[in-house]
Amino acid sequence: MKKVIFIIGVAGCGKSTIGKLLAEELHIPFFDGDDFHSENNLKKMSGGQALNDEDRQGWLETLNDLAKKQLIKNSCVIACSALKQKYRITLSDTLENQTKWVHLSGSFEQILERMNSRTDHFMPSELLKSQFDILEKPREAIQIDSSLSPENSIKIIKKELMNTSDFGLFGLGVMGKSLCRNLANNGFKISMYNRHVEGVEENVAKNFKDEYPELSNAAAFDDISAFVKSLQQPRKIMLMVNAGKTIDFVLEDLLPHLSKNDIIIDGGNSNYVNTKERFDYLKTKGIHFIGTGVSGGEEGALRGPSIMPGGDLAAYKSVQLFLETIAAKDQNNLPCCTYVGPEGSGHFIKMVHNGIEYAEMQLLAEVCTILESTAKNPDEIANILETWKDNANSYLLEITIDILRKKEGDDWLVKKILDKAANKGTGNWTTIASAELGVPSTLIASALFARYTSFNKGERLANNEIYRNTKKAKVDIAIDEVREAYQFARIINHYQGFKLIYEASNAYSWNLNLSEIARIWTSGCIIKSSLMKDLVDILKDTKNILNNPRLVESINQYKPSVKKVVSQCVLNDLTVPCLSESIQFFNGITTAYSSANIIQAQRDYFGAHTYQRLDDVKVKSHHTNWK
Amino acid sequence: MKKVIFIIGVAGCGKSTIGKLLAEELHIPFFDGDDFHSENNLKKMSGGQALNDEDRQGWLETLNDLAKKQLIKNSCVIACSALKQKYRITLSDTLENQTKWVHLSGSFEQILERMNSRTDHFMPSELLKSQFDILEKPREAIQIDSSLSPENSIKIIKKELMNTSDFGLFGLGVMGKSLCRNLANNGFKISMYNRHVEGVEENVAKNFKDEYPELSNAAAFDDISAFVKSLQQPRKIMLMVNAGKTIDFVLEDLLPHLSKNDIIIDGGNSNYVNTKERFDYLKTKGIHFIGTGVSGGEEGALRGPSIMPGGDLAAYKSVQLFLETIAAKDQNNLPCCTYVGPEGSGHFIKMVHNGIEYAEMQLLAEVCTILESTAKNPDEIANILETWKDNANSYLLEITIDILRKKEGDDWLVKKILDKAANKGTGNWTTIASAELGVPSTLIASALFARYTSFNKGERLANNEIYRNTKKAKVDIAIDEVREAYQFARIINHYQGFKLIYEASNAYSWNLNLSEIARIWTSGCIIKSSLMKDLVDILKDTKNILNNPRLVESINQYKPSVKKVVSQCVLNDLTVPCLSESIQFFNGITTAYSSANIIQAQRDYFGAHTYQRLDDVKVKSHHTNWK
Repeated sequence: MKKVIFIIGVAGCGKSTIGKLLAEELHIPFFDGDDFHSENNLKKMSGGQALNDEDRQGWLETLNDLAKKQLIKNSCVIACSALKQKYRITLSDTLENQTKWVHLSGSFEQILERMNSRTDHFMPSELLKSQFDILEKPREAIQIDSSLSPENSIKIIKKELMNTSDFGLFGLGVMGKSLCRNLANNGFKISMYNRHVEGVEENVAKNFKDEYPELSNAAAFDDISAFVKSLQQPRKIMLMVNAGKTIDFVLEDLLPHLSKNDIIIDGGNSNYVNTKERFDYLKTKGIHFIGTGVSGGEEGALRGPSIMPGGDLAAYKSVQLFLETIAAKDQNNLPCCTYVGPEGSGHFIKMVHNGIEYAEMQLLAEVCTILESTAKNPDEIANILETWKDNANSYLLEITIDILRKKEGDDWLVKKILDKAANKGTGNWTTIASAELGVPSTLIASALFARYTSFNKGERLANNEIYRNTKKAKVDIAIDEVREAYQFARIINHYQGFKLIYEASNAYSWNLNLSEIARIWTSGCIIKSSLMKDLVDILKDTKNILNNPRLVESINQYKPSVKKVVSQCVLNDLTVPCLSESIQFFNGITTAYSSANIIQAQRDYFGAHTYQRLDDVKVKSHHTNWK
Repeated sequence: MKKVIFIIGVAGCGKSTIGKLLAEELHIPFFDGDDFHSENNLKKMSGGQALNDEDRQGWLETLNDLAKKQLIKNSCVIACSALKQKYRITLSDTLENQTKWVHLSGSFEQILERMNSRTDHFMPSELLKSQFDILEKPREAIQIDSSLSPENSIKIIKKELMNTSDFGLFGLGVMGKSLCRNLANNGFKISMYNRHVEGVEENVAKNFKDEYPELSNAAAFDDISAFVKSLQQPRKIMLMVNAGKTIDFVLEDLLPHLSKNDIIIDGGNSNYVNTKERFDYLKTKGIHFIGTGVSGGEEGALRGPSIMPGGDLAAYKSVQLFLETIAAKDQNNLPCCTYVGPEGSGHFIKMVHNGIEYAEMQLLAEVCTILESTAKNPDEIANILETWKDNANSYLLEITIDILRKKEGDDWLVKKILDKAANKGTGNWTTIASAELGVPSTLIASALFARYTSFNKGERLANNEIYRNTKKAKVDIAIDEVREAYQFARIINHYQGFKLIYEASNAYSWNLNLSEIARIWTSGCIIKSSLMKDLVDILKDTKNILNNPRLVESINQYKPSVKKVVSQCVLNDLTVPCLSESIQFFNGITTAYSSANIIQAQRDYFGAHTYQRLDDVKVKSHHTNWK
C-alpha cells in the first residue's frame, strides 16, 4: 500500500538528512518541503521574520497536492516542520490511512547547538524559540531522538514502519481469515489476533500467517495488548467473533488498551438493537463503533464481500478505504460497500438481507419439492434450474444447481443430507422486527417457521406414522409454471424485505437509501441476483416496487402460474409454505375491502375496543351494544 | 362476607366483656375461648402453673375447628388470648382472609389493677407477668386501649371493621370497574382507586360507587395513601391499568405506602418478560407480585372471567379466595382460575390465549370472506354459522352470528365498519415468543400479519387500483366443506398454541399443567369453546393433541375439505392466509423427509455451516467442497 512519509520537527532537527537517507533506503522519491515555499515566505524568513499561519496555509496545501499526485505513482518521503496539529490535518487532507509521520525530537539546547554548527541554512537560529513555542507534539508519529546517528535513526524508522499496521482483524474464524487474506492481497499492512485457548486454539494467528504467502507482511498475535499496540492510531479494529455476549466481553477486554478516537468495527451478525446500545456505550468512552454486515460467506469474504456499515459518517470515512477496497465491485466497478446510515442501521439491513436469503432458500427448496414430485432426479432438476438462469438468475440458484449435481459414488449427495435446517438467529430477528414494526414480512416468517418445523424431525416422523402422509404426489404442473410461481414469490419476497427496511428507516429516522442498498447487494453477497440488479433502478423511482410498471407486468404474467402451482400443491399434499404465502399476501395487499371489519366488530363486541366506520372515518371510536 | 373476629390480649384485658358486647351489636354468636380448654389445662392453670405451647396446641386447634364450623353458617366472635404469632397462625389455619383480629392492649400495671379488682377468674394474677413476656404484638390487628369504656371500644371496633377492606382494586377502566362489581357482588369488602386528572378523570371512584348499589360498602379513593391505608394487611391490591411503562410508574407510586408481604396483582396484559423482571424487583422490597391474565372482556369481568395467575404459590394462596370466587365456573362448577406457575407464566399463557384468539377471529373472518363470495348476505351467513354450533361451537362463533345479524336501519351494520383491524400487542408478543422459542406458531403469525395488512388500507387501495383485484369470485365449495376446513384449522391453531405453552414451560422450567390451562379456558374467556372442553381430557393424556385418536379421526375427516377450500380460494383470488397456512403447516409436520436437506446443503456451500447425514446422524459437522 502506497504511503506518504512525513518527516517532521523544528528547524535544524535533521529532517532533510534523515528524509533523504530514508527515501534512498526505500527506493522512493524525497521532497524537501522548504523547496516549495512561495517567494514571499522565503523573503520573510530570510528577513528574520517568523511565518504566520496565513503564510503557511498555501504552502501546506501545495505539499498536500504534491503528496496526492505522488501517491498515484508511488510512495514518497516529504520533510516539513508541521509543528501544529492543524498543519498536519491540512497536509493529510483526504489522505487519511495513507500517511505516516516521523517526528525528529530533541531539547531546545540540543537543537540550538545542532543549528549553530550549520552554515548553509537560510533560517536564523533566533527563530528556533518561536518554533518550540508552537510545537504540538504529534501523538501518532514515530518518535526519533535527533541526537541519534542518521544510520540508527533510519534503522528505527524502518522497523517502526514495518511494525505499525494500518488495520487490525480480531478473531480468525472462517470469515475473519478470509477478510485478512483479502486485506493483505490488497496491500494493506494488517495485524491479526486470535485468542489463545490451551489445547483448543493455540498459535492460530501465527499458523495462519505461515500458511499463506500473502500474509508475510501481516503481524500475528495472541496477546491483546501487543495486538493493539501494533496498530497505527487512530486504530481500526474489525471484530470477527461470534455475535451476542461475546462482543461485549471482547469490548471490555479491548477497552483498557484503546485510545480516544480509535474505531471498532463489528463485522459479525449482531442484533441491531445491541449495536445501537454498544454504539452509545462506546461513545461515552470516546471510541467510535461501526456495526457492519458482511455477506458473501467464506468465498465472498476472500474475493470481495458485500459490506454494510452503519455508524457515524466521520468514523466511516476513516475506514472507508479499507472496506471499499476489499468489497466486491458492482457492474459499474463501484464497491459493494456504502455508508448505510446511523448506529444499528448496517446490522439492521444485514439482518433483512439474511431474512430475504431465508425465503429465497426456502423457495428453492420448495421448487425442488415440486420438481421431485414430478419424478425428476437431482440432475434433471439441476438441468431445469439451469434453464432458469436466463430469466431468474441468482447466486442461490447457481449454487443449488451445483448442489443437485454433486455425486457421492453413484448417488447424489443431496439425498444423504439430514433434512433438519439449522439457523443462527437473523431470520428469527427479522421476524421479530417485522412483528414489532407492524410490517408483515410473511415470507421470511414462513421460511423461518419452515426451518423450525424441519428441525423437529422426531415429531415429524411420529406424526407421519399416524397420518401416513407418504403418498407420492403426481401434480399437474408445467415446468414453466413452476418457474413463474418461483419468480412471483421472489418479487413478493423482495417487496417485503425492502418494505421492512423502508419502515424501519422511517421509524428510526435513519434516512436509508433503498437503491444504494440494492446496489451493494448486486455483488459479493448471498442474495445477489438479476432481480436485485433491476431493483437498483426501480428503487430510485419508488419505495414500493410493486407499483413499478415492469414488475406490475411480471406479477400479472406470473400470477396464473402461482395460483395453479399452489392449488395443485395443496391438493397433492406438497408442503410449499412460502409459495403459498406469496399469493395469500399478494391477495391481501391488493384487496380493497378486506374481512377485517368482522375482526373490528368482534373486538368491539367482547372488549369494547370500538371501531371506525366507512362512512365516518374521522370518528375513531364508534361503539355498539351488539346483542 | 362471613368473618371470624378474634378478640385477643393478655388475661384480664376484657376480652369476654368486649367480645360479648360486640357479638350482640353484630347479631352473631360469641364464644369464649377459655370455655374450650381441656380438663388438664384447666387443672394446670388453677394450680397456678402457666401452660406451655404443647398444652396450648390442642386448644388452639379446637378453636380453629370451631371457627371453621361456625363460618359455614355465619360470622362469629371468639375471645382468646392468642399472644404469639404462631398461635394466631394455628387459629386462622385455612381461614386466611376470613379472620379479623382485635387486640385489647394496655400496660402491665393497668391490666394488673384491672385483674385484682376481679374475683371470678380462675387465673392467678401472678401469671400475668409471664403473659406479657410472651406477647408478640399483632401487627394486623385493630388496636383497642383496654382503659377505654366498653361502649367506646365497641364503637371503634365497628368503625374499623367497616373501614378495613379485604381487597383493593387500582384503576377503574372498563375491566377494573367490572371486577369491582364482581368482587362486591360476591360480598367482599373492597377499596377502589382511580387517579385524579384535572378535567379528565375526576371523582371516578366516587361516581362509580354512587352508580351501583352493590358498591355501597366499597370505599372509593383518588388518594393513594388513603387507599392503601384502608386495606387489611397483608394488603392485596390488584392493578387494572394499561400494560407497559404505566405499571412501573404505578409500582413506584405504591411502594412507599406498602408493607412487607403485601401482594400486588397485575391483572393487565403485561408482557411476561416484564412480569418476571417486576417479580424479581418487588421481591427485593419484600413485596409479592402476581402477574395474572384476565380474559372475558367487560362482560366476563363482571359475571366471571377466566383468571390465570402466576407468581409464588404462597402469595397465590393469600388471594385464592378472591380470585377463585369471582372467576367463571366450569361445567363441574370449579373456578376457571388456577395457580398457573412461577413468575411470568400467568401472563405468558394469557399472551398465548390472545394469540389463539387472534387466529380464531381471523379464521371466522376468512369463513365470512368465503361465504360472502357465494353471494350470501350477512343474515344468510349468520344462519349458516348458527348450524355450526352443533359441531364447532365457541364464544367467538356466537358473537360473530350476533354481529352479522345486527342491522342499522335497513342495512347490516357490519357492512359499514372500516376494514382496518387494530391490535394491542399480545398477538405481536406471541409471534415474537414463537420466533424466540423456536416453535412455529404459524397461524397466530398469519393472523397478526393479516391485521397489519388490513391496517395499511391506503396501500391496499393503491395496489388495488394497479392490479384491479375486484372480480367477484364464484367458488365451487359446499358449506359443509367450509365448516370442515374451519374445524381443521381450529385444531391446528389449538395444537400450535398448546405446543408453544409446552415448549415455554420446558424452556423456563415452569412445570405447567396443560389440561388445567385448557380447563380454565372452558368458561369466562374469549376462546371458550366445545373444542376447548374436549382438550381438557385430551391434554391429560398427551402433550401433542394431534396424536389423540379422536382428533386424528377429525383431522383425517376434515382434510379433504381444507384442501378443496384452500385450493378453490387460491384459484379465485380469495384471501385466506390462516386457512391456507393450516394445511401447509399440517403437511410440514407430517412430512417424514422434507426439503430442508437442500437448505442445509446451501448453508454448507456458502457459509461452511456444515450438515448432518442421514446415514451418520451422530457426526454433527460434515462439510463438502461443493464446486
